[in-house]
Amino acid sequence: MKRVGLVGVTGYTGMELTRILLGHPGLRLTKVTSRKEAGQPLQKIYPFLQGTKLGDLEITAPDCTVLAAECDLVFLAVPHCTAMEMAAELRGLGTRVVDLSADFRLRDHAVYESWYQVPHTQSALLAEAVYGLPELYAERIAGAGLVANPGCYPTSAILALYPALAAGLISPEDLVVDSKSGTTGAGRKAGVGTLFCEVSDTFRAYNLTKHRHTPEIEQELGVAVGREIRLSFNTHLLPINRGILTTAYAKLSPGADLEQIRACYQEFYAGKRWVRLLPQGTLPETRWVRGTNFCDLGLVTDPRTDRLIVVSAIDNLCRGASGQAVANANLMLGLEEGAGLPFAPLMP
Amino acid sequence: MKRVGLVGVTGYTGMELTRILLGHPGLRLTKVTSRKEAGQPLQKIYPFLQGTKLGDLEITAPDCTVLAAECDLVFLAVPHCTAMEMAAELRGLGTRVVDLSADFRLRDHAVYESWYQVPHTQSALLAEAVYGLPELYAERIAGAGLVANPGCYPTSAILALYPALAAGLISPEDLVVDSKSGTTGAGRKAGVGTLFCEVSDTFRAYNLTKHRHTPEIEQELGVAVGREIRLSFNTHLLPINRGILTTAYAKLSPGADLEQIRACYQEFYAGKRWVRLLPQGTLPETRWVRGTNFCDLGLVTDPRTDRLIVVSAIDNLCRGASGQAVANANLMLGLEEGAGLPFAPLMP
Amino acid sequence: MKRVGLVGVTGYTGMELTRILLGHPGLRLTKVTSRKEAGQPLQKIYPFLQGTKLGDLEITAPDCTVLAAECDLVFLAVPHCTAMEMAAELRGLGTRVVDLSADFRLRDHAVYESWYQVPHTQSALLAEAVYGLPELYAERIAGAGLVANPGCYPTSAILALYPALAAGLISPEDLVVDSKSGTTGAGRKAGVGTLFCEVSDTFRAYNLTKHRHTPEIEQELGVAVGREIRLSFNTHLLPINRGILTTAYAKLSPGADLEQIRACYQEFYAGKRWVRLLPQGTLPETRWVRGTNFCDLGLVTDPRTDRLIVVSAIDNLCRGASGQAVANANLMLGLEEGAGLPFAPLMP
Amino acid sequence: MKRVGLVGVTGYTGMELTRILLGHPGLRLTKVTSRKEAGQPLQKIYPFLQGTKLGDLEITAPDCTVLAAECDLVFLAVPHCTAMEMAAELRGLGTRVVDLSADFRLRDHAVYESWYQVPHTQSALLAEAVYGLPELYAERIAGAGLVANPGCYPTSAILALYPALAAGLISPEDLVVDSKSGTTGAGRKAGVGTLFCEVSDTFRAYNLTKHRHTPEIEQELGVAVGREIRLSFNTHLLPINRGILTTAYAKLSPGADLEQIRACYQEFYAGKRWVRLLPQGTLPETRWVRGTNFCDLGLVTDPRTDRLIVVSAIDNLCRGASGQAVANANLMLGLEEGAGLPFAPLMP
Repeated sequence: MKRVGLVGVTGYTGMELTRILLGHPGLRLTKVTSRKEAGQPLQKIYPFLQGTKLGDLEITAPDCTVLAAECDLVFLAVPHCTAMEMAAELRGLGTRVVDLSADFRLRDHAVYESWYQVPHTQSALLAEAVYGLPELYAERIAGAGLVANPGCYPTSAILALYPALAAGLISPEDLVVDSKSGTTGAGRKAGVGTLFCEVSDTFRAYNLTKHRHTPEIEQELGVAVGREIRLSFNTHLLPINRGILTTAYAKLSPGADLEQIRACYQEFYAGKRWVRLLPQGTLPETRWVRGTNFCDLGLVTDPRTDRLIVVSAIDNLCRGASGQAVANANLMLGLEEGAGLPFAPLMP
Repeated sequence: MKRVGLVGVTGYTGMELTRILLGHPGLRLTKVTSRKEAGQPLQKIYPFLQGTKLGDLEITAPDCTVLAAECDLVFLAVPHCTAMEMAAELRGLGTRVVDLSADFRLRDHAVYESWYQVPHTQSALLAEAVYGLPELYAERIAGAGLVANPGCYPTSAILALYPALAAGLISPEDLVVDSKSGTTGAGRKAGVGTLFCEVSDTFRAYNLTKHRHTPEIEQELGVAVGREIRLSFNTHLLPINRGILTTAYAKLSPGADLEQIRACYQEFYAGKRWVRLLPQGTLPETRWVRGTNFCDLGLVTDPRTDRLIVVSAIDNLCRGASGQAVANANLMLGLEEGAGLPFAPLMP
Repeated sequence: MKRVGLVGVTGYTGMELTRILLGHPGLRLTKVTSRKEAGQPLQKIYPFLQGTKLGDLEITAPDCTVLAAECDLVFLAVPHCTAMEMAAELRGLGTRVVDLSADFRLRDHAVYESWYQVPHTQSALLAEAVYGLPELYAERIAGAGLVANPGCYPTSAILALYPALAAGLISPEDLVVDSKSGTTGAGRKAGVGTLFCEVSDTFRAYNLTKHRHTPEIEQELGVAVGREIRLSFNTHLLPINRGILTTAYAKLSPGADLEQIRACYQEFYAGKRWVRLLPQGTLPETRWVRGTNFCDLGLVTDPRTDRLIVVSAIDNLCRGASGQAVANANLMLGLEEGAGLPFAPLMP
Repeated sequence: MKRVGLVGVTGYTGMELTRILLGHPGLRLTKVTSRKEAGQPLQKIYPFLQGTKLGDLEITAPDCTVLAAECDLVFLAVPHCTAMEMAAELRGLGTRVVDLSADFRLRDHAVYESWYQVPHTQSALLAEAVYGLPELYAERIAGAGLVANPGCYPTSAILALYPALAAGLISPEDLVVDSKSGTTGAGRKAGVGTLFCEVSDTFRAYNLTKHRHTPEIEQELGVAVGREIRLSFNTHLLPINRGILTTAYAKLSPGADLEQIRACYQEFYAGKRWVRLLPQGTLPETRWVRGTNFCDLGLVTDPRTDRLIVVSAIDNLCRGASGQAVANANLMLGLEEGAGLPFAPLMP
């Protein structure tokens, strides 16, 4: 059993990490931290852990020296900027880190600073950081000291468009990515805007043209085509807890047809068990991936408008955050990529 | 047109008062106040009022002298204690008041102080205050200077049990009132416990045996039987915005049967258009009263256990707060009780 | 008071018509029909109408001769094909008709037959039918004998894009319309796919590239630009009862900027009280129009990708069906366009 | 690995059994049946099983001879009456059976026939059947050929009240059990009453005094006190997918206090890992048991009315049906009771 630590247990990604690690056959959660809840057993703040092996685990204040001494790997589930400093300290102590924040996802610190409007104080680490999308970078992740766990929206968008872009079957111009996310994506901070009565029974767009996940998507899809690209990425808030559904629109390259595109995706994701290309005519639903690491894809072409539409569905907390973090930790620690990750969604 | 003021426009009861008053043929909302949002037009904080006659109304800081000068009646939609002081000041200026808080609902200030754990600084006003349940006190409300608008749960519980208790058809012992409320009942304060992701897709009990609405229910049902009573009142949180459903359990008096009880309710509520006794075999649903002032009642007897079960449904924001407040204001200002109150629920 | 009839009272659009007509000052609902529920009072199938003036109205079997004799205007809230035949019969009897089905929306019967895969048996009536979008055709609606009430999605899409297209501020090529609808849009037929447990807590796309509302949108936006256009229109199912939010993506014409576009929309919709251009920076939410006839619009430009994004929100049952039908009836019968239509959304 | 069969895979309990068995270390699902879907791979009807080891399992028509030959144990997830006949046939072939229907839960066939209004054609088997509540009957379950899997509501009610009744700490008179269930409890049949738009954003009581689970609760709690009892059991429909919360009201026996009662429950459930007595002051929430076999209990006493209130929460599909069925199968086949059952609820 490898020992792992979790910094920031009180948010939704921290909660999801405890859920996954509770059943993990190869990782043991030995340290959980929260400045605010230090001193309490985990089951005090999470009564649903009573009667499980994690129930009595004591929450401690975060201390990198202790984490480095007692953990083979540390998950950082804290806000950006805070993550940056802790990652640097932990790396200095030789500890491997999976950072769930945005701090090391963008290879160019200037792009980070422009979208996040804060200085990047640890840009030297950017060269070392590996973008933790296993379908693209499994080998590099395995050898990484610092993995930048992808954002939830980017995971859904990149997996949706990468194969077709890399194969030249669609144009990198005029991409429109219309995403819809469950409300856990907004985090667990008190606020009027995410009260039950402000989200239930309604639907809205937010952050149009300005979402911070935009450059992350552009960065990775730019890799697919071998040059910088720009796309229109826009987000909406769903009255559900978990799940992202992304509808991506692209212009077909001349001559490209559905059969060809399906073959391309099948080949690209061959052996990647967490990406499922659904049968023709079947479109993804967020519930089909609820609680799992799957990314489901549906492909549709529209001959009337020469477009490819890719629909992707993930669980934003699992595949879009904590499940992917565990997959990355598995790779880094020499375990099977899918170890401890549930296959069966909670249906219905 | 009578002029009315609204103190505390930013909460859910304030929001609901603006909704109702927007379509009221006899009341004109001339002043709305909020310390925090003073200086802005109403549509700035409520974009859904743009294009309506209330959109440009300016929010002001609360000032009793101004309110007294410019309003025939003032609604207080502010927390208890704050309401107490403003009610006293407004009454001193001769203004009629409908107080939506709990401050004047309990006739005995000692009971108030015991359940609310604060001193009652205006207990002299308690003698003047009329409990604003029109089915019981319409005449006194019409002449009142200060109406204590009933709590949401008490409205549902009192209307459910009063007729049978007053007629001696059920025992005042062993009453169990099991209530379930939509989340608007928890107010519009930021807090983790009422975030969408903490309320959606779940259900819980809260405040068992300790809910502050208990003495209010006991007070009014005590009036029905002519002596003090005690009952078990308990509450649950529903993942819906609006609506209270109360299931009340009572022991049948010897010989009492369903036919007799239905006749009793029919007679008691004859001419009271906002209480609807549903046909035998039909049980209330919260959506059937959504957005209205109705209280729907369903009656069932259980010969196996000698019990009467009364199910009542109200919209906690409308009948349980702002709609009832408007009905009280109508009575106080000489308008028809139901003026401005919608009959058609938003279905579905 | 004008007398109106409603054919097909048991579906959601029929239910919504009763809700609106219950409070209408100028229209009296004198006939409601349903083959299946004939002989019962309305409150038997809709207990929420008990205690209202419509509660005792008897449901009858549909009979055009009776409807023609007793109504100044008839609403058809029945499936397509059925509507076609009844509209013809009623027109033959001289009765004015608002048809909520798709049967008379497409001016070219061949387009209808291609998308709906049924013959159009009353194509002679197509020349007479007026497309019932008051912002575009108010005058013609006023004089019409047969109004084709627009589809829910088309209402949201046409109002979103028409002004910019007509003014040449965006390109009619490469339009992407990504729409999300509440589940009432799927109707009130029993089926596993729309059970609560199949829709709740999930989100999915459906009918991609094939939705029957596509040609309706293309027809009207084609009018805006003066030639045939094709666009990508795609739909998703929201776990809410009411509401459509449409996110429409268009390429900006060279030189077009946000200020210019806002001015264009302001001018185009001047005097049209049911379309609200929200302030810059504010985006529509479906709840802000819940239960009303409003269509709220938000405009955003993205200089990075030279795009205009228009977000529109309507209540699919009210503005997208029954509310718009009442507005059309108002115009046809010489009443004020907004008569009987509520201004205040049910919030929250 | 033991081989198990599942008769009736298309309902929610069948779906939940596949979810649990997918991750079970000791049971292999070798046969799944559905008359309607025979011939298809499981992933055709359940796309969320694509990419898992159950995805390609072929659905067959139910055939007891084949089931008996290929399975060590068979789960019956079919309607009552159908289950009765198949259970008899399978028992005749020597196969062990866990029946999720109501057919063998009531020891007295006359009680069954009175509540279910159908003849019991296999009453000879009733003597053999064991009521599958492991906390009460683990040893007998281990040796049983036929286990009657408890109803969802009875599981929540019996576990809530059994210890206090058995210890004489509460009176068996005047018990009131007020239960609220998620909508999966209504099954997966097409019907207007359980459409999303008829359940969402509302709440209602149903089947008051007449729910068929009543005699099942009375039977087992009668065992606790050693004589027949009658109680008031009533049910409500929650707008959530999974979860039952039961609020049970009982009169305290003279002298009984909370400390004593907590000690009684702690002792009674010592070693029963799936029943969790929450700390004093903490009340159960359905989400804390979502997807698990836990039954969480909260205890509150009310000195004002001399009552004990027990709140229990289970997942109606897991603990209330399929999870409990797997626990029973584990016991019958010599595996650890909790094998394959997830400990971590899907939170949030």
